Amino acid sequence: MPKKRLGPSDRIYPMPCPLVVGGTMEQADTLAVAWIGIASGTPPTVGMALRNSRRTLELIRETGELTVNIPPTSLAAEVDFCGITSGRTTDKFTATGLVLEPGVSLSTPMITQCPYNLECRVVQELELGEYVFVIAEIVDSHAEESVLDETGAKVDVGKLDPLVYIAGSREYCGLGEKLADAYTIGKRFREADGS
Amino acid sequence: MPKKRLGPSDRIYPMPCPLVVGGTMEQADTLAVAWIGIASGTPPTVGMALRNSRRTLELIRETGELTVNIPPTSLAAEVDFCGITSGRTTDKFTATGLVLEPGVSLSTPMITQCPYNLECRVVQELELGEYVFVIAEIVDSHAEESVLDETGAKVDVGKLDPLVYIAGSREYCGLGEKLADAYTIGKRFREADGS
Repeated sequence: MPKKRLGPSDRIYPMPCPLVVGGTMEQADTLAVAWIGIASGTPPTVGMALRNSRRTLELIRETGELTVNIPPTSLAAEVDFCGITSGRTTDKFTATGLVLEPGVSLSTPMITQCPYNLECRVVQELELGEYVFVIAEIVDSHAEESVLDETGAKVDVGKLDPLVYIAGSREYCGLGEKLADAYTIGKRFREADGS
Repeated sequence: MPKKRLGPSDRIYPMPCPLVVGGTMEQADTLAVAWIGIASGTPPTVGMALRNSRRTLELIRETGELTVNIPPTSLAAEVDFCGITSGRTTDKFTATGLVLEPGVSLSTPMITQCPYNLECRVVQELELGEYVFVIAEIVDSHAEESVLDETGAKVDVGKLDPLVYIAGSREYCGLGEKLADAYTIGKRFREADGS
């Protein structure tokens, strides 16, 4: 099947689209961030690209903290609003009904309607073009009991029902059915290989 | 709904799980990387966390290049094998049948069976704990004609059918149906707000 050359791209498939919060219970802002991923496992660390002009980034810099809040698909409109609106002119929490709750390990609040939340302390900033790449250690995490699996220690992604962002076509979708167990299904090639 | 404190975490939901290739047509290796995301838009840049011990990382360092190859759900077993196997002892391409094709803009090959591919030039490495965070500019991209939308310029994610990785429960899944248009559905709160 021939491939078409599309040039430089800022797209990988798929992307998460959490709400990142900066600030305090008294003054906070949030934005949707699809350009985010785990940056290290030791210690658990997240990295995200933010436009330098973002008010949430200013608030993150004031405290050196942020939270990452994973929205369910039912919050697609709220997440989208937080991505296309500036907190300089609109209080996104009032407009959407998203509610803040106090941080547990840090001072930055979390979003109540997001059933999975990460509390993070910024460790480094990199200037990459017009974006600031913020690297933050994940010092704590929280999940609604309703999205945990039977062990009570891990998220059941089917219950979490996280919102997914598709770059390029600019659409939101949900996840499909589980297809296979990781660290397991690949072993078939090991056997075939005799190794 | 009460939330349960789960402690430090290396999980966000969901994650992509592309195959990252390092090396040349003569000598290449690949691994599955879920800890990856866009790190800047200007220029398009990707960032990924790799264990320092990975052979693919050695090959990436030799050329200063890598490719990111988005697998369809049908390659779940191949991707998993490339994540749980070391290229030091097994030729992953022979074992799985994954085929390399020459790079177009750079010298690192791409994986033929992955219908969307990014060619990237490394710009920076960060040491983050036991992981190396590799930052690379995306200098070119390629897509099979069969996964493009009607404009021929953008990927149709339904046709791409990208594999998705779920951390924690360690499972693969596909995407669900489109839920909403981004940059659009959120406007309802703008109207409600009168702004």
